[in-house]
Amino acid sequence: MKTYFDCIPCFMQQALKAGRMTAKDDKQLKKILDETGCLIKSFSLENTPAEYGAEVYRVIREITGVEDPYKEIKKQSIEDAKKLYPELKQIIEKSGNRLLTAVRIAIAGNIIDFGVNKKFSLKEDVSKILKQDFAVSDFEKFKHASEKAKTILYIGDNAGESVFDKLLIEELNGKIIYAVREIPVINDAIYEDAVASGLDEVAEIISSGVKAPGTILNQCNSEFIKIFNNADLVISKGQGNYEGLSDVKRPLFFLLKAKCGVIAGDLQVNENDIILKGINI
Amino acid sequence: MKTYFDCIPCFMQQALKAGRMTAKDDKQLKKILDETGCLIKSFSLENTPAEYGAEVYRVIREITGVEDPYKEIKKQSIEDAKKLYPELKQIIEKSGNRLLTAVRIAIAGNIIDFGVNKKFSLKEDVSKILKQDFAVSDFEKFKHASEKAKTILYIGDNAGESVFDKLLIEELNGKIIYAVREIPVINDAIYEDAVASGLDEVAEIISSGVKAPGTILNQCNSEFIKIFNNADLVISKGQGNYEGLSDVKRPLFFLLKAKCGVIAGDLQVNENDIILKGINI
Repeated sequence: MKTYFDCIPCFMQQALKAGRMTAKDDKQLKKILDETGCLIKSFSLENTPAEYGAEVYRVIREITGVEDPYKEIKKQSIEDAKKLYPELKQIIEKSGNRLLTAVRIAIAGNIIDFGVNKKFSLKEDVSKILKQDFAVSDFEKFKHASEKAKTILYIGDNAGESVFDKLLIEELNGKIIYAVREIPVINDAIYEDAVASGLDEVAEIISSGVKAPGTILNQCNSEFIKIFNNADLVISKGQGNYEGLSDVKRPLFFLLKAKCGVIAGDLQVNENDIILKGINI
Repeated sequence: MKTYFDCIPCFMQQALKAGRMTAKDDKQLKKILDETGCLIKSFSLENTPAEYGAEVYRVIREITGVEDPYKEIKKQSIEDAKKLYPELKQIIEKSGNRLLTAVRIAIAGNIIDFGVNKKFSLKEDVSKILKQDFAVSDFEKFKHASEKAKTILYIGDNAGESVFDKLLIEELNGKIIYAVREIPVINDAIYEDAVASGLDEVAEIISSGVKAPGTILNQCNSEFIKIFNNADLVISKGQGNYEGLSDVKRPLFFLLKAKCGVIAGDLQVNENDIILKGINI
């Protein structure tokens, strides 16, 4: 997905939000905004928003020296999600359609996103999404693909959401590879967040090699690319991965909640809709 | 009022909004955002938001050649407000406190603002404001000052709102000087908008000399400064004038609706509150 004009004020908003969490004083915060503002000129709208996101967080790292602004928030999100795990597991156990319920739960986890300008209430939002209609649902195709798949690449998104991903992974067969970001960016899951979420119990965790809040294929490491090209099924979670992968040629399934107007517009759905969308299938 | 960090993403949003109305193509729109982004670095937060606003609109003028992006919108706002005029006049006629009702109506007109990221519904919002409690009200002091004043400087804000100002001016005694912006900026009233609103029937219309969406004293012309210094009463309408004048040493009254969180915070009120605030009185 290319960058839309509406993404530009949102970049400034994100720089301000993360800058406030990391800058030691107003001078440093102003410098973050100065640099983020100047970046616009060097940035082409043909690139994905996730690539600009990577630049914003690079600026913040360089100016503040803080490597992981959302470290504590991510830890808390994982703890909160783990507390919900037994209840969510029960919901799946009692469900008439375990896989579909697990898909819904995985999408519900996608609300744990500190990159969008939206507040969320974990428990309430999850129970809402469990009843919400899909705006796009390729569930039957997803079910078919998941039953056949021997290797599944599951591209994670946010920390905390990763616990919800575990519940879906437990309903899948075959070997699961769970991909995370190379370095901290927004509240996206990195290796240690995936381990803290218990994903090492159900999947092989790898880094995609990417420093952006999304999967930018030409920035991925060769291990990821090999798995991406050869896996029988690829599952992409969340907005950032959609931004990077919406135009790829291989079959894959996007699981996400459209949390901003730009993504919703690109998917031709409404804001807050939930989506299970297969492409090239 | 100084510029707050939260104003910075808002500047980008305003550049995008006005850019969309004026740019001939995406390339030109991108250039507007590039330049607006670069401006942040050269801009001190010690300046007022209105000064940055002036720069944004200068960039738009220079890139697009469009002098008055909101020309048609302003015309429409004035027409809409004029249609409401007889009804509003009736409300004043029937009111137990004509001056207070006229003040409320003048503040209600302040919703006609295309610079904030807020939609409005003229008729509905006006009737709401007519019943709304003031968050700050120095009405008795205002009444006293207006009864004594021989010359009153009334600093206008938006086109359309200017028709509402006329209704308050008609309740005031003494000689009224109505000040407008020097050139078009957002939907602020310029000379021709004030005339179209019928203000020439009740006031002497002058330009403040300012090219910003607010009153920046060191940019005002000498005629305005002379009147500003010598008028018995100064009435400042709206957010932009508040930004420029909140720290001045002379007595004046601010009439506005706090339409954004930053202004509300500076005034220590809640967003959407209405205010009649006197300073140095």
